[in-house]
Amino acid sequence: MARPVRTFVVIGHRAVTAPNFSLDDVPGTSGRLDVLLRCVAAAFVLSHGIRRDTEAYLILLGPPDPPRTVWIQGERLRHLNPDERTTAALFKKALALQPSGTAWLQSTPGIAVNKMKLDQVLERLKGRDLVLLEEGGQDVQLWKPGPNPVFVVGDDKGFTDHEIAAVRKAGAQQVSVGPLALHADHCITLLQNHLDRTVGPSPFSMAP
Amino acid sequence: MARPVRTFVVIGHRAVTAPNFSLDDVPGTSGRLDVLLRCVAAAFVLSHGIRRDTEAYLILLGPPDPPRTVWIQGERLRHLNPDERTTAALFKKALALQPSGTAWLQSTPGIAVNKMKLDQVLERLKGRDLVLLEEGGQDVQLWKPGPNPVFVVGDDKGFTDHEIAAVRKAGAQQVSVGPLALHADHCITLLQNHLDRTVGPSPFSMAP
Repeated sequence: MARPVRTFVVIGHRAVTAPNFSLDDVPGTSGRLDVLLRCVAAAFVLSHGIRRDTEAYLILLGPPDPPRTVWIQGERLRHLNPDERTTAALFKKALALQPSGTAWLQSTPGIAVNKMKLDQVLERLKGRDLVLLEEGGQDVQLWKPGPNPVFVVGDDKGFTDHEIAAVRKAGAQQVSVGPLALHADHCITLLQNHLDRTVGPSPFSMAP
Repeated sequence: MARPVRTFVVIGHRAVTAPNFSLDDVPGTSGRLDVLLRCVAAAFVLSHGIRRDTEAYLILLGPPDPPRTVWIQGERLRHLNPDERTTAALFKKALALQPSGTAWLQSTPGIAVNKMKLDQVLERLKGRDLVLLEEGGQDVQLWKPGPNPVFVVGDDKGFTDHEIAAVRKAGAQQVSVGPLALHADHCITLLQNHLDRTVGPSPFSMAP
């Protein structure tokens, strides 16, 4: 890997896998895709640019045709706005594509989609420092990350037993972000800040 | 003051002061009220409830009739959703009211509006630990907050010279949240987490 990369894997247990949700009511019509949209903003958006050293895999497991994995690469992204609605429109474009397996179909620059499951995403990220974000894990402020960490984050439903087992089997350590249970996007904000303070922002992290 | 309170004061320099913005394009029609809506979510929303120990003053300075200050009290709030659109609808209700001075008009439970300016909001919060969030300030992780801190946070435009002077004159210390410039809502998430870790969440902070 040429550059340090921060990777977030977020599982949307009910998040829809077709583009026919309403932009006027994303929380009510998309299986809470709004949770994932806020995770995207937390992972990528800086005050004056996009985090080029970050990527995210959003694993959507809702109807009608799960799974869909949306892969977002900060290095290639253009025009990511911080608001939920415009990111929802980008997801609509990604979900309008019909991937057949693990080949990536690009919808817009830096955003691609395929049909990978969690196990396949973990296999793809094999060899990197894997972190399961969970209550009761080691306090993130006491944890010294390696240069290329991969964080697995649950949505508002947390994780299934199978997911926890799969991530642990892949060698994950468990980390928590504080004494209260927070939304996934707030956890990602805290993790990015911890990386900024420890590993440090990479030189290209603030490129516009 | 009976209970520990965490207060956030956020200034929306262009944020509209009338309810005629479009819920379908909040960033484009409201003077970036969306920035403030995300601040509200960061300040109040927990995974399983609302932060009852938090309040916020959103000072709106955009057309047609500035200022409007929207006061949100966690203790009294009902039904605050984490998504931007439903919070935008709550702001529409607040901005439909016609306050004439510093008397609060309640629009929905826990949300009220008046015509206070920044100086008046600072006067109202006099005597409490005042913190100006600004790049170059003391690192928040090295700062030990008192039990009732007040944070003044800028929107995407930062602060005017007059605002900085007014907040400093009121006795503020300057604090920053990390090495990169972040959006206001991400700063608030980091501040709340720091308070959770130092002052500690108050016993009622997680009441649903």
